[in-house]
Amino acid sequence: MLFATCRNPSDSQELRELAAQHSSIRILRLDVEHIASIQEAAVSVKEQLQGLGLNLLINNAGRVLDSTIHSESEENMHLLYQTHVVGSLKMGQTFLPLLKKAAQTGSQDSLSCNRAAIINISSTAGSITELFAWQYGHLLSYRCSKAALNMLTRCQGLAFKEEGILCTAIHPGWVQTDMGVSGIYKPPLKKEESVQGMLKLFSTLSEENSGGFYSWEGKALSW
Amino acid sequence: MLFATCRNPSDSQELRELAAQHSSIRILRLDVEHIASIQEAAVSVKEQLQGLGLNLLINNAGRVLDSTIHSESEENMHLLYQTHVVGSLKMGQTFLPLLKKAAQTGSQDSLSCNRAAIINISSTAGSITELFAWQYGHLLSYRCSKAALNMLTRCQGLAFKEEGILCTAIHPGWVQTDMGVSGIYKPPLKKEESVQGMLKLFSTLSEENSGGFYSWEGKALSW
Repeated sequence: MLFATCRNPSDSQELRELAAQHSSIRILRLDVEHIASIQEAAVSVKEQLQGLGLNLLINNAGRVLDSTIHSESEENMHLLYQTHVVGSLKMGQTFLPLLKKAAQTGSQDSLSCNRAAIINISSTAGSITELFAWQYGHLLSYRCSKAALNMLTRCQGLAFKEEGILCTAIHPGWVQTDMGVSGIYKPPLKKEESVQGMLKLFSTLSEENSGGFYSWEGKALSW
Repeated sequence: MLFATCRNPSDSQELRELAAQHSSIRILRLDVEHIASIQEAAVSVKEQLQGLGLNLLINNAGRVLDSTIHSESEENMHLLYQTHVVGSLKMGQTFLPLLKKAAQTGSQDSLSCNRAAIINISSTAGSITELFAWQYGHLLSYRCSKAALNMLTRCQGLAFKEEGILCTAIHPGWVQTDMGVSGIYKPPLKKEESVQGMLKLFSTLSEENSGGFYSWEGKALSW
């Protein structure tokens, strides 16, 4: 069973078409910026799982707002912190019982995405070392929140290891999505390439990758 | 001239005693959690400088709130992000004209704290690599905000280099302050040791340290 979430299911034509083709896909309304919405979604997931656990939680919700270091606003700093960091923290807290249930089921004792995992979709724009695409924009609200998300992932990796839950931050690449297309620049990566790379990576992640930061191609990244 | 700021000057007996002994110290009310307060302080500093620039801005305001990865709240995540990250960003934006004025004065063309600098007081608890004192507390709101502050410092270092302003993040050590004393643990470092170390460090910082992260002893730290 695969739960695909979005803020407005009725507006998501592509997602609904996909769900019509694949009976394993369940669409759920979820806005990570509102804690009550996260809790409602968790209740629905638990009901539908009928006693089973949740193996994999992918925190993919993201925003980018153009800004310079001179113009960056208080409001946008908090807005992106809410989406990327607080939202991911609360998703982890709220779905933890279902992830733990998955971790405890079966005979596995090593960490893997097949057993129980949290994947936080981060960005090399949030790598303090790499500072990807600085020449395209300062994007302070984006960069600061993604650096904080990397910190969250590292902490989750340490805290949830004993629970049997793998936690990893992944840079999906600069992808040709609505969000990725910014101004005059065309992102180099097709959605299919990014997703196929990440799916392959998921299948290889183990304990040594928990709390770490990797590209969609599996390359270890600097904080 | 040295501007020492605090939220409630009338409650700060020690600071007022210090100012009574040193005529160069001017006490100003400033709460970095409120943008209007930052702006008011900048107006007052500008008036008192009478056309001169500001050489050194130290963002030292900090909070720590005990929490675990299970209990960390949305409110505290935003509160510490405001104090450490948004406050420091807005301080930098608001005092930029005065820092630029200092940078343009005189014959220096290299970066230094004598010319114009922003020092952001960070923490190795915000180092994603080091994760200082994890065994003493998860402190997600603190760690995530300090990692984001490190990102801000790196961006400021790049953006303000052309303006002649040095920007560096400093870990002051675990100091015997009201904030440093947490529960049963006694911090190892006296205030005088930390401050003397940082003052010595300030005098040595140059272009190669801008956008970087150093301990009070001058050791380069990992992000």
